This record gives sequence, structure tokens and C-alpha cells, in this order.
Amino acid sequence: MPKINAAILIIGNEILSGRTQDLNIQYIATHLSKVGIHLEEVRVVPDQKPRIISAVKELSSIYTYLFTTGGIGPTHDDITSDAMAEAFGRKLERNPEAYRLIKAYYDGLGREVNTSSARMADVPEGVELIYNSATGAPGFIIENIHVMAGVPSIMQAMMTWLLPRLKSGPAIESRQVTVLVGESRLAQAFMELQSKYPSIEMGSYPFVHEGQHATSLVLRSDDADALNKAFLELEQIVSEYQSII
Amino acid sequence: MPKINAAILIIGNEILSGRTQDLNIQYIATHLSKVGIHLEEVRVVPDQKPRIISAVKELSSIYTYLFTTGGIGPTHDDITSDAMAEAFGRKLERNPEAYRLIKAYYDGLGREVNTSSARMADVPEGVELIYNSATGAPGFIIENIHVMAGVPSIMQAMMTWLLPRLKSGPAIESRQVTVLVGESRLAQAFMELQSKYPSIEMGSYPFVHEGQHATSLVLRSDDADALNKAFLELEQIVSEYQSII
Repeated sequence: MPKINAAILIIGNEILSGRTQDLNIQYIATHLSKVGIHLEEVRVVPDQKPRIISAVKELSSIYTYLFTTGGIGPTHDDITSDAMAEAFGRKLERNPEAYRLIKAYYDGLGREVNTSSARMADVPEGVELIYNSATGAPGFIIENIHVMAGVPSIMQAMMTWLLPRLKSGPAIESRQVTVLVGESRLAQAFMELQSKYPSIEMGSYPFVHEGQHATSLVLRSDDADALNKAFLELEQIVSEYQSII
Repeated sequence: MPKINAAILIIGNEILSGRTQDLNIQYIATHLSKVGIHLEEVRVVPDQKPRIISAVKELSSIYTYLFTTGGIGPTHDDITSDAMAEAFGRKLERNPEAYRLIKAYYDGLGREVNTSSARMADVPEGVELIYNSATGAPGFIIENIHVMAGVPSIMQAMMTWLLPRLKSGPAIESRQVTVLVGESRLAQAFMELQSKYPSIEMGSYPFVHEGQHATSLVLRSDDADALNKAFLELEQIVSEYQSII
């Protein structure tokens, strides 16, 4: 079975300016792993139509899925829907179901849908909507691209709706040990373990714990059997050091 | 004066797996803004040499500067130096000054430099080193690329050394107001302000504050004069709403 892979495109000046700490990459990455989708690339581009179009075309042609976040709100800097329509030569149209969802949400707030809010119902023709339980305004699916909000709580509500609808593979599991020793002391044995299990992704992550060098060694794979075997060997390798966390 | 711009390339399976929350984008972005360097793109790629080489070649050809993080430690998954040498057709060589720095650091710990630690002194020929006050192992500059560690504290120490050495421009300043109203109610007036000041980057960021809709409006520019004028107008626009934070 071919590997199901994916990329994320974050559309957001606020990430590139440093104003906003991104929280979406880790959330999406973690949840894709659980359903066996391999995240292989992330890009962050500004709120500029040509930049969005070129990144979307490239990434959607390489990976099984592309997930975008940001730029689908009611303000002038929200240009993702427009860019998606242009990227795939589709018209932007007022989607009646999207409008109904937005209106129901505003009805609940006791407010009218103004011209700006209504813009959130303008999506490329022929898309499937992505529902979310947090607000009325939906995302949408165009080709293999899942267009979501940038606000973490709304994006997460959209992912919750989306995840059971994606093609999935064997879950990508990880095992980790953390020991109180610098990573260079483990490097040789860890490299030998990697050579023995080439299909397992092995990473070494150093940090400082209460003034002392510490290292987390991480094994990651969708082959649960190989992962368990390799992890038993890893525990042998680190057995002489103090385990922490 | 042409705009000085930059991209970040994060080399790290740990970000793509969701194991690690990235903290480097925001730090680098914020510090580049202060010296007038416009961050225009970020990519995250796996610890795979062909992927690193292709991203490095593309990004370094587009932007004034490229900053990379990750993959320069002593373990088998640290392949950034090797990839950089291959990308630019240079030999990887043991750099005597890098080795001296690493040895001095290990001397301070009362430890020998083993084969794995010594690998951190193997960098492409002809590079300039990037010093850091946190550990001995340096980063390096190759062409317009600044190769740094992925561990935030070490990357930050490298940026501290680097920043005064980069070409700089007028600082990119931002002004922000946050008001207790949904962004769609501000959208029309904010769009008109954007049309009046096209050189200023204007963003609208909605969130929920104690159960109520709230919006931050952000203006950003390296033209301090235009920024101040536009901000006075923005304060007029939002004056009827309750300001928070």
C-alpha cells in the first residue's frame, strides 16, 4: 500500500512577523500521525495571492493531501478562497449551504449577517464544505486540499470533522527514552541501531535538565512489530544511564 | 534601497511528527523585524539530504538571507553540514577553529571529545563560523545561508552573535489595538484604511475573550511616519468599542 502523505500550508503574515506563536503545526501533525498520514512538509507564506497560488499548486501536486490554515475570515486580508478559485480556474460563488450555516450562527448571537460576514460564504464552485462546531463559517475541500481557519480552536473543530473522512493507514507510533547523558555518548550505538532498522525513523534530541546534559531518543514507525523490537534494543543501549521524565 | 528579505528552513522530523512544538520561527521572526529584515517564507522539511539540498538551493536563490535550524549535532540524524557541502559542491572538512571551540567546551566539562562530538567540527570548506555562548559547537555561514542549531537556547545564542553582523534596514514596527467586537463589524472600515495606506501591512485577528468576540487589528511597516498616521485613523475607527488588553 502506498504511503499516504501530506503537507501543511500556513497562510499568515502574523506568523512571519512573529506576532503569533504557531500552534497549528503540532496539532495537525499529531492528529495525522494517529490516522497513519505522514506529514512531510510545512510552508508558511504571506497573505499574498500569487504566493498562495504557487504554493498550493506545487504542494497539492506532490502530496496525497494538503491542509491549509488561515485567510478564510471576513476581512480584506482573508484572500484564501479567492486564491483557491484562481489556482484551479473556478468561479467564486456564494454557497447557499455555507450561507445558511453562517446565518444560523449569527441568528444564535441575535445579530444580522452583514456584507463582510456574508463574504465567508463565497467559496470556489463545486467544493465540499468542512463543518465545524465552533463557529458557523465552514472550511472547504477543493481537489486534495483542505482549507481551514487559522484560529486554533476553529481549525481543531474542522480537523475533528475531517479526520474520520480522510484515507488512513496504519497509525504512526513513537517510543521514547530520556536519559541523563549527553547525546554524543549515545551516538555510536544509536547509529548502529538505525543501521539495523532502516525503516524506523530515529531521532536524538539533546536538552539540559537541571544543569545536566540529557537526551531523548525517539523511534517512530507505522510498523508496530519492528518498533517494539528496536525499542527493546534501545532500552538495553541506555540501561547504564539514569532514566528521567 | 531594496528590501532585505529572508526565509527560514527548519530541518526537523521532530516538528513534522508533532513531537516538538516549534519555538524558533517566532524568535527569529521577531528579531529579524527589529533589524529591518522581512521574513517572507518558512519551510519545514524532514532530516533527508535530498530534501534539505533542494530546499536550501531554492530558498537561498530567492531571498537575501536563509536561516536554517537543526541537524548540526553529533548523531546520525544530524546531516545538515553534509547536505550543505553537497548543495554547494564543497568538501566537508574538519575545521580546526570549530574543533578548538568544541574541545574547550568539553575540557570545561572534564570530558574527552569522542568521535561523535568531533563530527560537529566537520563543516563545508571555506565557511565562516557562527559562535554561540551556550555550547562550544558553532554554526556556520555558507553563501547567504546561516546554519544554526535547532535547540532553542543554542539557536538564540547564535542569533545574538549573528544579528549585528547582518545587513539591516529600517526596523519593521507594528501597532495594535484590541477591541471587544467581532472582526466582521470592523471589516469595511478596516478595508478602506488599507486602501488608503497600501504600503502598510494590515491584519485582523479574531479571538474569543471571556465568551465574547474580540479582534486585534495590527498595522506593520518600516515606514514609521505612515504607520503613525494610519494608527491615529485606526484609533478613530475603533473608538466606539471597548478596548481590551
